[in-house]
Order: sequence, then structure tokens, then C-alpha cells
Amino acid sequence: MLQSQINQWLTSNRVHGVKLLQKLVQADSTQGNEQQAQKVVIKTLHKIGLKVDVWEPDGSKLSDHPNFSSSRQEFIGSPNVVGILKGTGDGRSLILNGHIDVVPEGDLEQWEHAPYSGKIIDGKIYGRGATDMKGGNVSLLLALSALRALGIPLKGDVIFQSVIEEESGGLGTLAAILRGYKADAAIIPEPTNLKIFPKQQGSMWFRIHVKGRSAHGGTRYEGVSAIEKSLLVVEHIRELEKRRNQRITDPLYSKIPIPIPINVGKIEGGDWPSSVADLVKLEGRMGISPEETIAEAKHEMEGWIESLKDIDPWFEEHPAILEWFGARWVPGSIGLEHELIGKLTSSYRDVLGEEPVIEASPWGTDGGLLTSFGETPTIVFGPGVTEKAHFPNEYIEIDKVFEVAEIIALTIVDWCGVPASTRVL
Amino acid sequence: MLQSQINQWLTSNRVHGVKLLQKLVQADSTQGNEQQAQKVVIKTLHKIGLKVDVWEPDGSKLSDHPNFSSSRQEFIGSPNVVGILKGTGDGRSLILNGHIDVVPEGDLEQWEHAPYSGKIIDGKIYGRGATDMKGGNVSLLLALSALRALGIPLKGDVIFQSVIEEESGGLGTLAAILRGYKADAAIIPEPTNLKIFPKQQGSMWFRIHVKGRSAHGGTRYEGVSAIEKSLLVVEHIRELEKRRNQRITDPLYSKIPIPIPINVGKIEGGDWPSSVADLVKLEGRMGISPEETIAEAKHEMEGWIESLKDIDPWFEEHPAILEWFGARWVPGSIGLEHELIGKLTSSYRDVLGEEPVIEASPWGTDGGLLTSFGETPTIVFGPGVTEKAHFPNEYIEIDKVFEVAEIIALTIVDWCGVPASTRVL
Repeated sequence: MLQSQINQWLTSNRVHGVKLLQKLVQADSTQGNEQQAQKVVIKTLHKIGLKVDVWEPDGSKLSDHPNFSSSRQEFIGSPNVVGILKGTGDGRSLILNGHIDVVPEGDLEQWEHAPYSGKIIDGKIYGRGATDMKGGNVSLLLALSALRALGIPLKGDVIFQSVIEEESGGLGTLAAILRGYKADAAIIPEPTNLKIFPKQQGSMWFRIHVKGRSAHGGTRYEGVSAIEKSLLVVEHIRELEKRRNQRITDPLYSKIPIPIPINVGKIEGGDWPSSVADLVKLEGRMGISPEETIAEAKHEMEGWIESLKDIDPWFEEHPAILEWFGARWVPGSIGLEHELIGKLTSSYRDVLGEEPVIEASPWGTDGGLLTSFGETPTIVFGPGVTEKAHFPNEYIEIDKVFEVAEIIALTIVDWCGVPASTRVL
Repeated sequence: MLQSQINQWLTSNRVHGVKLLQKLVQADSTQGNEQQAQKVVIKTLHKIGLKVDVWEPDGSKLSDHPNFSSSRQEFIGSPNVVGILKGTGDGRSLILNGHIDVVPEGDLEQWEHAPYSGKIIDGKIYGRGATDMKGGNVSLLLALSALRALGIPLKGDVIFQSVIEEESGGLGTLAAILRGYKADAAIIPEPTNLKIFPKQQGSMWFRIHVKGRSAHGGTRYEGVSAIEKSLLVVEHIRELEKRRNQRITDPLYSKIPIPIPINVGKIEGGDWPSSVADLVKLEGRMGISPEETIAEAKHEMEGWIESLKDIDPWFEEHPAILEWFGARWVPGSIGLEHELIGKLTSSYRDVLGEEPVIEASPWGTDGGLLTSFGETPTIVFGPGVTEKAHFPNEYIEIDKVFEVAEIIALTIVDWCGVPASTRVL
């Protein structure tokens, strides 16, 4: 039976798989430094026997694109890597997409081991990017390795993508789409904790300038505190979040406390303890529902910030200034009836003997771009948990990497199909 | 009549006085750069004919003193200057104290003219320090010049002080007290807009660390926002301010909306728009009533911040951390029956033909130190307005500088006394 063959191969190649993940985690691939990790990927793709395509996206051309979102415009030394497994024909094609970039390690003091140690403790590999999302990438590579090693031919093409720039909005995936890579469906193994996400929230960053009027702290009543006014703004945003989330009725969101949160993540204002602050800057992230466009979400927020004047006349003459900046992720959604969901669900059931949880994603991924701009319906499903992503002491459970590898290998076979003549398994 | 003689002298020497003020304003005397301005003062004191004492405070000795408050411990190149006019004997002594340091010029964009231009427009001199408090210092120097030029001998000593470091808590005045300078009373011509301040609020700076728990912004409900918690802290402090001010019943404060404000002047927290902020720092200034000690005020604030746990259990396990840092001004107070108030009031009446406003000061000055530690009861009274101090386009009205000079000259004579033999005026 196919499943037990794959399972057996994965078990006998566990050491190899763990070493590959360790090597990838040890390669610091923060944005601008992806080269070393991509070399590890390229070597692995060659070993598996895939046709490899490596290129550095041309920032000068891409930066005019309406879907461009990146903090830089120059990608020399930051290649995208694609590996193609050509099918025998007549099958459905599948993109397997994972990003190679990791977020910065943050406060080193909070790391128990060095951020790129790749240390293994109690069945977990530690390091920046272990969960987000080198663990998932290794699941993909293991799935492909297993199928090739077991000599299982496929009718449809499989396109493996190791892309840059997901953490700043998906330039790498945008470049891959524009290079012509599309497929009948895609899987992105971001850390969903093995939940299946057919819908993904989009998101974008905003900045709000809240004005006050300066005065000496000893006569603070002669000024207007931008800090106090910014409290109103934070509360007002909280109210908008409430309203937007009341509209979300999709049962996929039923277990999520706040389906599309608006997070105010940064605040900064005033420059002297004994002066009244005359300016506060707020920065945050607005979740975008799969049922709305980025433009609609922007429009709603802009109107809402304008309406501050209705709760405090101060804002009439001193409006809070809203701007959109930095990263942005397009929302994406495929219908629950999509055949890939059925196939993934059945592989999941076969491997783990239980029903998977199907939910909507609390964050954006490159799946939004792939689905809505790349015409490639995408599911997000992978090992690792959100709670570890972007934080100190990030780790991934090795078992989960192998479980996902097995589920995805089965799904590939099921989706792409096997030529009738070889159906001997 | 004495007053008309003084008035006449001041009128004929107006150009000279304005030039002196202009020269002082043009000398940037931000902390660490006081030398040039002090040279102008020293030259003027020599011209008037005073005995001059110049010394650099010894930071290594002073920094252990319980009243030490400064952002630095080294004062080389930052001299204190004192000029002594010895009396003939049997009179009351008077300290005339003004600080030479000015606060930084801040955002240059907001200045219409260069901050140290000393430009004169419509009877006002513009520049950093014009109001706070070189204008007042020149009033003192003009008063002494007039008395000396008119040959009026005094029974009591007059001690003129041009001190450093007032803006960071009074190290210069502390050093002068420790050098032995005390008197029967003192006047500090800080910008009171010609109001008489027998009571001065003290103040001190605080910093509060408000903790949260980090999480991804897309699942913000899994974290605890230090920004939202800090809103509670700001509101809680507002409540303390209310309680503390309800206790202030002194009629001197009756026209002041908030006698002893607590100003939260700075906020900073979070480091990523799409993460939940796990730390916010608040910085502010707490006003201290003349009726309480610094220790009492600290104690009250500390207990209040601790009581945050009663309004939100989060603070039970994650208490907000309060620390005292930076500048601190001791409160000071002299009784309304003090004879210097009577003499100043009567001089004011003589010069301006109306009753002065007697109020309590909304900010701290070196008068707190002089009164409570230096055993020298101090009144604050000077030209210039608080609204211009510390802000761009600071200026002072030249007329006010001369009015105060006249009032103070008369007060000196009245307080220190004139030997009977020369009472020919």
C-alpha cells in the first residue's frame, strides 16, 4: 500500500530529514541574506532530481506592479528557487510554495540558545524560522523525495517554490507568478498546526498621527495631550474592529475570537516628561476579510478615523492623519467544495486516523496572491504553531514535520494522478 | 524721590540694558555651554563694582548630596557666578538668584528666526532663554546698576547669583548654598508674568514600565496589549491627580485649574505593527504641593500605581514598575505675612499703580531649595510668561524687564535699608 511505503521511507530517512531542517535553520535567511539557505534548497532539489530554476527578481521592473509590497527594491543576492517535477501528462498540476525568508531574531537576551543554533531538545528543533516556515518547507521536500525514491510517477506537474520576501508582503511569490508559474492548485505549509485553511485573511499596516498642543507640564491644562487623544483613537479603533467582526458570519471563523483583528502594535509620542505631548504616532495591522477587497477595507478605516470628530470636536480642527505603509498581504479564499480540500482531508484521515480541523487563517500568506492574482487556488496547511512564529525560542516538533510530509505526499499522488500502467501499488 | 530717580536712570540706560539682554540671549547657554554667557555676567558685575566669586561646582563631591539632581556629574567649563554687594551693616541681606542655563532649542523648523538671534521685533527680544530667564536676570543686573550709579548705599548685603543647572533640578543653587551663601530672603525673577509667587510647587520625573504579553497581531486575543494596559495606567494617574488636587484648598491656588498636575509627557512601546506590544514606557512629571514633602508625594504615587491591581487583575501578576529619574525640584513656601511680600507688593504698587496678583507657582524653581534647604525664604517674581518658556520663538517684552528692574530696585532699598545719614532721597 502506498501510504505504508511512504511512511516507511520517511521513517528510514528521518535522520536525513532532520539534518536537512537543521541545516536550513542554521542558515540565517533574514531578508537580504537568503543565499546560503537557498543553496541548501537547490542542492536538495538537484538530489531529488528536479529541474531547477533560480533567479533574482528584478526590483526595478516589479516595483511598479500594483501588487508590489516590499521594504526594498533591490534583490541581488536574494534568489527565488523553483524546482519542477514534470508529469507524464493529463494530470492536474500542483504548486508547493514555501518562503525561505525569516523575520529578525529580535531581542537576543530572550533566546535561551543562539537564534540559529538548530539545537534539538525533546524532539523539537529550535531556531528562528523553524516554525515559520522551514519546517513546512522540509515537509514538502521530504514528500517529493519519498515519491521520487519510491519511483512513483505523476501525471500532473509539481512545482516546488522556495520564495523570498513573504514576511514583507510576497514579492517572491509575485515574481514567480509573473515568471509564468501557475497551477491547478497550491499548498503552502505555513504553521497552521495541521489545520486546513481554505481562507486566508489579508492584512495591511497603517500609521496614525494624533495631534495635541504643547504646554509646560506644570500648566498642562493650557495644552492638549496627544497621549490622551491617542487613547481615544485606540478605543475608537477597537470599536471599528468590533463592528467589522460582527459582520463575519462564515462558520470557518466560528471558533476564532476575533476573526479579523485590528492590532495597534506600536505607540510613540511626546519628547519631554514635563511637556504636554503634541504628537503621538500609532502603528498597527488591520486584518482584511477574504470577503472584502483591500480597497474596501482601506475605505472603511479612512472613514472611521475621519469620524473621530463626531466623538471629540478636537479632531474637527486637528484631524488624525491615517497613512498606509510597509507590508500588505492580499486576502485569499477557495470554496469548501474545492476538490483539493477533499483530497487533503482524506490523506489527513488516512495518516492520522481523525478528521482535520478546517478553519480560516488568522493571518495573511502568499496564498492570497496565488489565489487571487496567480489564478492558483491555494490551501494553507502545515506543521508548527503561530504562537512560536516571530518569537524568541521558536521551535518546531519534528514529528509534525514528518506527519505533514506524509499527508502531502499522499495528496500529491491523489491530486496529480498516477499513470494507469504503473498503478501497481 | 527715589523711585523717579531709578525710573529716570533706567530710561536713560534703556539701550544699554537691551544690548546686555541681547548679548546674553545670543550666548547659547544650554547645559555644558554656560561659559560665554557667564563671562558677560562677570563683566557686568565688575562694571557695577561687585565682588565677584566664580567657581565650577565639584560634581564628585556634590553627587552624594541628598538634594543632588542633575543629568551629569562633571561641571568643568560650567561655572557658577556670584556678585556680592557688601552692606554697611545692620541691614537685612537679600539673595537675587537667576539661572543662566537654558533648555535645548528643540525642533529648529519651528523657529521663525535662529534660536539665538536675539532679534528685536515690536518691543520683544526673541531667542531661547529670553523669558526663561535671561530677561529676569537682566532686571536684577539693571536694578543693581541703577542703585550703584545713583550712589545709594545699603545696610544689608545683596548677593547676586547667576547659577547653572536649574533646568535639571538646581545643582548650581545647591552648590551656592553649600559654599555658604544664605540670606534673610531671596527673590528669583523666573517668568511669573509679574505675579508674586510665595509658594512654589515642586516636581519630579517618573517613568512607568507597563507590561503586556506578546502575540501575533492576527491572533492578538492570545496576547495582552501593553498599549491597552497603559491606557488604564494613564486614566488611573488622572484619577490620582484629581484626588491630590481636591486636597488643595489654599486660596493662592484658587484661580489655577489644576494646582499640582501630573503630566504624562512621553509614551513609547511596541516594536512591530503586527505584534501585540509587550512593553510600554510612560514618562512624566508629578507636581508636588508646598504642603507636602517629596517623600510623601513619592509614597502616594507608589501606592497608587500598586493599586492598579484592584482595577485590573492583570497588574497583580504583572505589576507596573514605577521609577523616579532625572530632574527634581523641591517645593518651597513662605507665609503670606512674610515682610518681603509686603515690601515687594508696595514697590509694585508704587511702580505700576495697581495691586499685584499673588498666586502659587505652577512649576518648581530653585526657590524650593533656597527656602527649605538654604534657610533663605524665597519669592519668585519676574518678567516673561510661562507659555513662552521652553517653546519655539521664545521672547520677552522689553518693557516688562524694565518694570521688574524698577520694582526690584525699590524692594532692595526697602528690604536692605539705607543708612540713616544718607536718607536724603
